[in-house]
Amino acid sequence: MRIFYHPITFEQSMHCVLPEDESKHICKVLRMQNGESIALVNGKGTEAIAMIIENHPKKCLIEIQSVKEFNKENFHIHIALAPTKNMDRTEWLVEKMTELGVHEISFILTSQSERKNIKLERLEKIAVSAMKQSKRYFLPTLNPLISLRDFFELHSPCGIAHCSELTKKQNISKLTKEQIKNLPIIIGPEGDFTSEEINMMQKNENLFLHLGNTRLRTETAALYACAILKSKLEE
Amino acid sequence: MRIFYHPITFEQSMHCVLPEDESKHICKVLRMQNGESIALVNGKGTEAIAMIIENHPKKCLIEIQSVKEFNKENFHIHIALAPTKNMDRTEWLVEKMTELGVHEISFILTSQSERKNIKLERLEKIAVSAMKQSKRYFLPTLNPLISLRDFFELHSPCGIAHCSELTKKQNISKLTKEQIKNLPIIIGPEGDFTSEEINMMQKNENLFLHLGNTRLRTETAALYACAILKSKLEE
Repeated sequence: MRIFYHPITFEQSMHCVLPEDESKHICKVLRMQNGESIALVNGKGTEAIAMIIENHPKKCLIEIQSVKEFNKENFHIHIALAPTKNMDRTEWLVEKMTELGVHEISFILTSQSERKNIKLERLEKIAVSAMKQSKRYFLPTLNPLISLRDFFELHSPCGIAHCSELTKKQNISKLTKEQIKNLPIIIGPEGDFTSEEINMMQKNENLFLHLGNTRLRTETAALYACAILKSKLEE
Repeated sequence: MRIFYHPITFEQSMHCVLPEDESKHICKVLRMQNGESIALVNGKGTEAIAMIIENHPKKCLIEIQSVKEFNKENFHIHIALAPTKNMDRTEWLVEKMTELGVHEISFILTSQSERKNIKLERLEKIAVSAMKQSKRYFLPTLNPLISLRDFFELHSPCGIAHCSELTKKQNISKLTKEQIKNLPIIIGPEGDFTSEEINMMQKNENLFLHLGNTRLRTETAALYACAILKSKLEE
């Protein structure tokens, strides 16, 4: 059954109007008829089965027939990175991390960041599409760009994966489940962190990490970290 | 120091002419001068330091000054998949798996494959560029498209990662180092394997695998499998 997205709280027997893009997809692209069934997710852990009442191409009316709740995992994968100069690479990364099951993605501004802005709305659409495609029930939280310093005020301690030889690093693959289950991972930007940034991050109980023997692009590093966390934390 | 690619055997004091695209990059893009030094890799485990003798934009002449050999790893990461309908996704995957350190990539034709041809030369260029970018010394082998049946005649047993419920599967993350160190991994194509293909693969000592709790696109599955093998096999 096709899966559609509507970010509301579903209730049995409730009638509601779907967002315009989903209405258009149902009526114009798939040409679905009144009485046909669809699956709906809200990105907050609920799936509903619904029937099309009025296949209006802008305001498709549906009736919720059944509702199923899914439990959140007992771990939280949070990856923070500076958006790449070439935005395609960040968009690709958001899709791939969503498929792998990331819970939260933060974007940070670093001294070497060339890109100073992102279109969060566009990234959210990519995440919604990847969530539906990979049959996930939770939409990852995408946080707006903030400075590295502000990120540390909100989230600490963190795992920090970077390239330079200024710190003593552990291999991310050797960390225990207990160490990583709620540890945000920050990925070094294109051009790496400056020595001032490294000094600033040496406070608190941050862990400096490496990602194995090859030098990875920032988006590959983020995806690799996400893959290792998923592999270790899923039952 | 900038890294360039020349797929020959390097020898101390040898003079040689670089390929046209690397010559152009050195002379036209970087405007390097005679007497300047470059690093060269041949994709077969050797790095050389060389001096520019004549900065000709099509036939740059260099002299090899020193040669260093790197050892191959004692494991072999080999990922096989059906090329995706949208070729961008396969190109992206070749870049990312090369960064992660894949040794061999095979392309297979399955019953559900929509794409019946690939441009291997273009994929090889992408792999060369990713190899230089990630400071690897070995270029992965990219094998031309063959049928699933022929692949099994060449490589067996394999790990087979697919979605359908027709087989009893193990989580790839739970396999031991010994099990995976020379195990080719085949990734189910877009649309998955047919039940005839699954039956055919149930012979020999093939291992059926799953990749965790989310449903992954074929290229994400390939990258995830490659990431897990890298993480487990690297010292």
